[in-house]
Amino acid sequence: MKNITIYDIAKEADVSVTTVSRVLNGTAPVKASTKEAVLRVIEKHKFQPNALARSLIKKETGTIAMIVPDITNPFFPEVFWGSENEAREKGYTFFLCNSAGEYGRESEYLSILREKRVEGIIFVGGRINLANCPPELVQEVVDTAKGIPVVLVNGHLAKSQLHRVYTDEAAGAALAAQHVIDLGHREIAFIGGMEELTTTIQKVKAVKRKLEEHGLGLRKDRLLFGEFSITAGRELMAKLLEQADRPTAVICVNDFTAIGAIKAATERGLRIPDDISIVGFDDSPLSTAVIPELTTVTQNTNELGKLAVERIYQINNGLPAKRSTVLQPKLVVRQSTGRAPGMA
Amino acid sequence: MKNITIYDIAKEADVSVTTVSRVLNGTAPVKASTKEAVLRVIEKHKFQPNALARSLIKKETGTIAMIVPDITNPFFPEVFWGSENEAREKGYTFFLCNSAGEYGRESEYLSILREKRVEGIIFVGGRINLANCPPELVQEVVDTAKGIPVVLVNGHLAKSQLHRVYTDEAAGAALAAQHVIDLGHREIAFIGGMEELTTTIQKVKAVKRKLEEHGLGLRKDRLLFGEFSITAGRELMAKLLEQADRPTAVICVNDFTAIGAIKAATERGLRIPDDISIVGFDDSPLSTAVIPELTTVTQNTNELGKLAVERIYQINNGLPAKRSTVLQPKLVVRQSTGRAPGMA
Repeated sequence: MKNITIYDIAKEADVSVTTVSRVLNGTAPVKASTKEAVLRVIEKHKFQPNALARSLIKKETGTIAMIVPDITNPFFPEVFWGSENEAREKGYTFFLCNSAGEYGRESEYLSILREKRVEGIIFVGGRINLANCPPELVQEVVDTAKGIPVVLVNGHLAKSQLHRVYTDEAAGAALAAQHVIDLGHREIAFIGGMEELTTTIQKVKAVKRKLEEHGLGLRKDRLLFGEFSITAGRELMAKLLEQADRPTAVICVNDFTAIGAIKAATERGLRIPDDISIVGFDDSPLSTAVIPELTTVTQNTNELGKLAVERIYQINNGLPAKRSTVLQPKLVVRQSTGRAPGMA
Repeated sequence: MKNITIYDIAKEADVSVTTVSRVLNGTAPVKASTKEAVLRVIEKHKFQPNALARSLIKKETGTIAMIVPDITNPFFPEVFWGSENEAREKGYTFFLCNSAGEYGRESEYLSILREKRVEGIIFVGGRINLANCPPELVQEVVDTAKGIPVVLVNGHLAKSQLHRVYTDEAAGAALAAQHVIDLGHREIAFIGGMEELTTTIQKVKAVKRKLEEHGLGLRKDRLLFGEFSITAGRELMAKLLEQADRPTAVICVNDFTAIGAIKAATERGLRIPDDISIVGFDDSPLSTAVIPELTTVTQNTNELGKLAVERIYQINNGLPAKRSTVLQPKLVVRQSTGRAPGMA
């Protein structure tokens, strides 16, 4: 495959490189007959303009990147899926960067993405989920956003004024709590999630408030923090079940934790939901794969991804772009929750 | 953030652009005192060389892309994870392209990646998994590989001579069949996977061969094709269970199918493995999340991804690169398989 360049095309069509560039990019009118001649040569050589060269001329690369903390947690592929579909529709291609939840890796990727002059960065999880993000980590994102549109998904950086698309996670957790209270549960626990992350903090706060509204409290020994993984859910549930008076309903920080909790409870001979009710969060594809199917909170994952790309598109094209968009979650009742034991 | 260019650095350091480039890229020796002066100016402005411009000089972008058919199937994030870690170690960054299993999208991505002059493409699933891939789809990949190293993971394009890294899926399926035969099963079924894909064909052939070795056959009504999804596994298992004489062991094309199969069997009141044994394939993280935990075949997913990046690195650096690398799968026995009903 000989590498035909824009110069070869210009030479053969007997026009200037600028003219070829105009034909390729539609940046300025070209006489019809000249345009035809150029297109004939392009067609003849099946010429593919070098995106690198073209982007240097047009000062854009047509690429959006997404930074996620864990590609193996199904929540993130679902957000990615929504973004990628929207990106393709808008003519962007998609970089995926996996930070493994390490802030150092995030910094590294931010630096690479600035270098590569991507047209937008979607930031999900990691530092934007910290209740107290160190100022230098905030500044790095703010500085990046001066040159490249940045959209935060389900996260926040204090005083940063960055564009955000997020689920009202507190409202979702309140729905979960209201649901088990309505089913007659009074002994309610919350498990999973790191204590320093806003996603955890918001959910815990909302659950506490909802319980208090009903004259109930969230006991200290029924609030157990951990990772967002299946393994963590399993371990935390095991701890809960070792207690003398175990809860009858457990609200989990996400579906992974809930799946682990189901496993731990079942292994100990408990029937779900007859003996204990379990609620997840995310409505990931796995929630219908487990037995029993998971009652959970859906947060329109695809839509989050889609809206993030839409914002980047709007910013890049000088269109009005909402600074902050909040999506309302919904409760999805399946099989893992039922009336409290002893209730009619 | 003022955009400092290489020209500004050159001007302020009172050297040529070429000298700055040499300092940045280490492409030729520069006098120590000059180098120091240039580095001082670079440091002062916190100058980040534009990767686009740099790659035009160096004719490389430091980017590897992976094309996958379905980012929400955990097998692919696991391969990606292996590749991404290796890529970072080798100084590459990583593009992820999701084709949704559409050959048209694959073509589009190949074209974009050629344009973007990535340094390597890892191709997983999609057309490379077709038993009879149309010649023009093969040619497209072969043409791409003339300019960019391409590595196929768990797939193949006839007569293409492309680099491959793959699991011996036939050997894996044979292990699964041998396992249930050893447990005394005689009534064995195979479900899942599209009939035209090599991953399905190889597994079915291997299971048939293994059964024949033991004087058994794979009945036509016990070989049911479908998608690779949980939903498909559920539907196919439901079909099997409607039959008058149902099998006592079911080998599934992948873990997703097996999880769906477990669900269908449990919903019908069957106990696993007492009434029916189920085997998966892939050993995805989900295989330990379900109840009962899945007996499955591990194919060293991370290792596949890692080796693919290694090949690209070797090709790009003129090192010897094995044309074809095969990994041997292993059986992982967990809780979803047991002795055939009626056996001691």
